[in-house]
Amino acid sequence: MSLEIADERLAQQIRFLVEMDKLKTVLRRTFVIGTDRYENSAEHSWQLPLAAMILSEYADVPFDLCRVLKMLLVHDIIEIDAGDTYCYDEQGALDKQEREGRAAERIFGLLPADQAVEIKGLWAEFEAGATPEAGMANAVDRLMPLLHNYYTQGRSWQDHGIHSDQVFERNSRVGEASETLGALVQAIVEDAVARGYLAPSRRPSQVAKEKGLPFGSEKP
Amino acid sequence: MSLEIADERLAQQIRFLVEMDKLKTVLRRTFVIGTDRYENSAEHSWQLPLAAMILSEYADVPFDLCRVLKMLLVHDIIEIDAGDTYCYDEQGALDKQEREGRAAERIFGLLPADQAVEIKGLWAEFEAGATPEAGMANAVDRLMPLLHNYYTQGRSWQDHGIHSDQVFERNSRVGEASETLGALVQAIVEDAVARGYLAPSRRPSQVAKEKGLPFGSEKP
Repeated sequence: MSLEIADERLAQQIRFLVEMDKLKTVLRRTFVIGTDRYENSAEHSWQLPLAAMILSEYADVPFDLCRVLKMLLVHDIIEIDAGDTYCYDEQGALDKQEREGRAAERIFGLLPADQAVEIKGLWAEFEAGATPEAGMANAVDRLMPLLHNYYTQGRSWQDHGIHSDQVFERNSRVGEASETLGALVQAIVEDAVARGYLAPSRRPSQVAKEKGLPFGSEKP
Repeated sequence: MSLEIADERLAQQIRFLVEMDKLKTVLRRTFVIGTDRYENSAEHSWQLPLAAMILSEYADVPFDLCRVLKMLLVHDIIEIDAGDTYCYDEQGALDKQEREGRAAERIFGLLPADQAVEIKGLWAEFEAGATPEAGMANAVDRLMPLLHNYYTQGRSWQDHGIHSDQVFERNSRVGEASETLGALVQAIVEDAVARGYLAPSRRPSQVAKEKGLPFGSEKP
């Protein structure tokens, strides 16, 4: 059932675009607001560039919006092979880089070489988070799930026993890109705790204990 | 359960982004490849700008890719209120413009006025289809569903009794933006008919009869 396209470059591009359908089956841990189902990574990859468009004026440093749009369109494609690693999953984080690196090789490798390099570069830039564009992209990648959690009464936080100190740590990237959006995160998290959507912050000693670490120690 | 944000402009922007979740519940008539479920309009609104990125080299006239990305990110937002009008639904087409116009007023009206004007302008440009950017955006909006139909063995075509002359007519926009992609459409449709995924072309007399029109007449 494979379509035969004489031009190999075009054939590669079409195979890549057809492969992309698989991202629609990769489930995240956030719920679509007003529904009883998880959001998938394709939907998320639409809403983030839209959020970047709408919120671009709040970035503290100038950035190239077009590059951010491209970056966010491709930032989760590797999940087709690597799956979505829940942001509070410390176990999953251990081999995340290796899994995602292999995924990038295979999936971006479906494209003609020049495009593979371009798209892989956008993804790597997003992951490294060092440029103004990656900073803004990472900011909306944290802000939207926070809004999803808030507007589903913290359902995913509660399902996974998340505390506000974890949410603050995870979302610190927002404030690095935008003071205004960082203040918004602060307000949302505080309100979520006040409403009982999110468990309050653990004491440092409790965090260490839950991590199985000696008190106050960052590493075992 | 509404979040209170002191700055009214930011509050409007966040309300708009939260409202966007509803696009994830608008179902199209195409099936996600390899699944038994319909694609939704949010997933579609991610895959199209990605397709524009990957296929941009085939446009016959130069265009601003960044504008196309923005246009495709917002092109279906009005479906939150207006629903997805199936492209072969002649009845639905009758009041499509009115329904979508009302939807645009309400949904884009959630945004601060300057952004409402910008986003509504992008959507209207897409609908009018007159600029190079709108031409390319419309081309991928037709090409991707064609690929979906092909790679699900024409399931949606068969469910709705679609014939190849309708698909050719619908996809003529692709060839207007890109000779290469237009030729690809031609090849896909011919192959789909050969494989039995798509019913062959009806004769003009048959088309007229099915439309309830006098033979050869375009209008009643």
